[in-house]
Amino acid sequence: MKRAEGAGKATLPKSPEKDDKRAKAELEGLAEGIIKSIDRKENPKIVTTSRTKSNVIYDDKEGILKLGDSTEERTFVNVGQAKRFMQTIAVAAKCYKFVTENLHTSIRGLFYQLKYSLGEDIDENIFNEQGESNPLIEDLEVALNVKREDLNLNATRRGVLAGDMKVMDSFGNERLEIDTSRMGRSGWAIPSDVDHDIEFVDVKAKYVLVVEKDAVWQRLNEDRFWQKENCILISPQGQATRGTRRIIRKLSDMGLPVYVFNDGDAWGWYIYWTIKTGSINLAYIGSDIATPSAKFIGVTMSDLEKYDFLKKMTMRASEVDLKRAQEMLGYPWINKHKEWVEELKKVIKTKTKLEQDTLQGPRLTFIDDYIREKIRNKEYLP
Amino acid sequence: MKRAEGAGKATLPKSPEKDDKRAKAELEGLAEGIIKSIDRKENPKIVTTSRTKSNVIYDDKEGILKLGDSTEERTFVNVGQAKRFMQTIAVAAKCYKFVTENLHTSIRGLFYQLKYSLGEDIDENIFNEQGESNPLIEDLEVALNVKREDLNLNATRRGVLAGDMKVMDSFGNERLEIDTSRMGRSGWAIPSDVDHDIEFVDVKAKYVLVVEKDAVWQRLNEDRFWQKENCILISPQGQATRGTRRIIRKLSDMGLPVYVFNDGDAWGWYIYWTIKTGSINLAYIGSDIATPSAKFIGVTMSDLEKYDFLKKMTMRASEVDLKRAQEMLGYPWINKHKEWVEELKKVIKTKTKLEQDTLQGPRLTFIDDYIREKIRNKEYLP
Repeated sequence: MKRAEGAGKATLPKSPEKDDKRAKAELEGLAEGIIKSIDRKENPKIVTTSRTKSNVIYDDKEGILKLGDSTEERTFVNVGQAKRFMQTIAVAAKCYKFVTENLHTSIRGLFYQLKYSLGEDIDENIFNEQGESNPLIEDLEVALNVKREDLNLNATRRGVLAGDMKVMDSFGNERLEIDTSRMGRSGWAIPSDVDHDIEFVDVKAKYVLVVEKDAVWQRLNEDRFWQKENCILISPQGQATRGTRRIIRKLSDMGLPVYVFNDGDAWGWYIYWTIKTGSINLAYIGSDIATPSAKFIGVTMSDLEKYDFLKKMTMRASEVDLKRAQEMLGYPWINKHKEWVEELKKVIKTKTKLEQDTLQGPRLTFIDDYIREKIRNKEYLP
Repeated sequence: MKRAEGAGKATLPKSPEKDDKRAKAELEGLAEGIIKSIDRKENPKIVTTSRTKSNVIYDDKEGILKLGDSTEERTFVNVGQAKRFMQTIAVAAKCYKFVTENLHTSIRGLFYQLKYSLGEDIDENIFNEQGESNPLIEDLEVALNVKREDLNLNATRRGVLAGDMKVMDSFGNERLEIDTSRMGRSGWAIPSDVDHDIEFVDVKAKYVLVVEKDAVWQRLNEDRFWQKENCILISPQGQATRGTRRIIRKLSDMGLPVYVFNDGDAWGWYIYWTIKTGSINLAYIGSDIATPSAKFIGVTMSDLEKYDFLKKMTMRASEVDLKRAQEMLGYPWINKHKEWVEELKKVIKTKTKLEQDTLQGPRLTFIDDYIREKIRNKEYLP
């Protein structure tokens, strides 16, 4: 296997530092702009970058998916846009309230607040379905260059972490020190928001290891892999949430190499590429949550050549796996790496795949040795 | 609303105490029995209680779903059973190894160990799919009267907890004290196994509050509801896992009343009844993981009479909700409670439902007052 380029800490621009007060100022600026327009008898408008698929681009220099330059305007005096304009302002007003009160809720909580308050004065429901309010939140994120988390809207959280590091969580009035090396069998649950009133200090680990499956995380945690290897052990517990992607990026910003160990199938690849380059759906926050320096340590089809027992352990690749492999060969951010082209072609040709749990076959702790060796020998895909 | 009977601590038999060494002894007993049969030239057999739906009964006295008396025999000298018999012994042997080594894995990890070790000597794969090994694990659980967790097989974990209590987690060689009142925004992640090498001490809380959705848990955690009310705040984060059901039961065994706050729909009811009476699929461990004293505090259709604003906040009940409500009316453990019959009939009649997030409508903290009042006034369904 060709050695991939070094874990590359230095070349990337660091993700923007968060400023708790900026979201509030941005919301105030939006409101002031609209009031000024009205005073001047102009048509109030909101300008936002287009989030359509055609405006999602791969930035080869940064190594992330992000939005292009196309913008969209929402104006108030426009039959087709008036309702949506008004809805966006209603969403902004609620978020301003949450930020001012310093209270958080979910996008579903926001939806019910909108349903409640608008329902008081007006007989018609202005939002009937949450599907109507969700894209307006994204509009605001893009228009104001803030993240949902800056607007006090929690996203789904999932993911767990263990390692030699401390979390300073200013929770309520208390400043808690949480030692993520003393969380036992459970690990530390990665929250939705890892930017506000929270700090990661005393990070003594040398690298970050991300393992797709929680069951594998538990296995490695039991072996104290993170302690023996001095790494931060993370499982996204499936697809990585915004919070989990963000913390991986923050640890990368601190100079830690990031290695990902997943199933060698459609889902495992997808989870990896989402962590590395970001995703099309969240391209608008790609520069915050993608970690372009991430490396894929396995499971790969090349492992079959090295570990003889694996030949008996392959599973049949599903239609989804094969279709996904074919699609991935068409993505410029993937097919620019010949190691990935080889890997995907092997899957398509043999119609087989390997799961990460397979490495527990010979003995439960074999998986530890596999990972250690891969990292030591720099045997990973870019 | 009729007041439900008291939270009833005393009448239930406590769930069995766990003995770490019992599973090992049971596995040894199984093996010895088989060896003896062979020595005596008898046909080796394994006797297990039938887990078919027809053998799942509702025990009205205990208030749980459990297995009836039908048993099944697996014998070795039997064309139809020989393979399955051998597979069961292979599973038992692996579990014995895990227990002896004091290492844990998932049922997928077990599957790959079986695939590996049998594959060494025999050309044919004895397990092709995990679907073949999973029921054999359940066979063993029932035959030996142990839980998967006793066999060092982790189940899926999910669920989070905060409250005034300490977890003594003997993790590896370290005995960690985890204070679940100092877990900040994250809470303590409930592990798969809450019985072995783990203790819950200094439980100062007065009751347990279970909220279906993690977003609602986060909302209440931010308000420090558990601190103000002195309760243990748990979210199963959807359907409750074995570990989450088990910890709820253990806290109930300590004398704490258990209140559940869910959506008033198919999924919310299902989560509640699974916590309270156990489920058909896991009836074989019902006496360990069901909490018959649990009460349902909402959201209920009767809330519409009390909280006027809710009338504007109902959602259309889905086909699944209506079908489920109809089915539930046929379950003896549900239709024996006339409060539940009334509730379900209201949903069927009005074809509407209420979600727990609705209670954030008037203000984010309204949900706190709602829960407090419900508990104070004992306004819950049995």
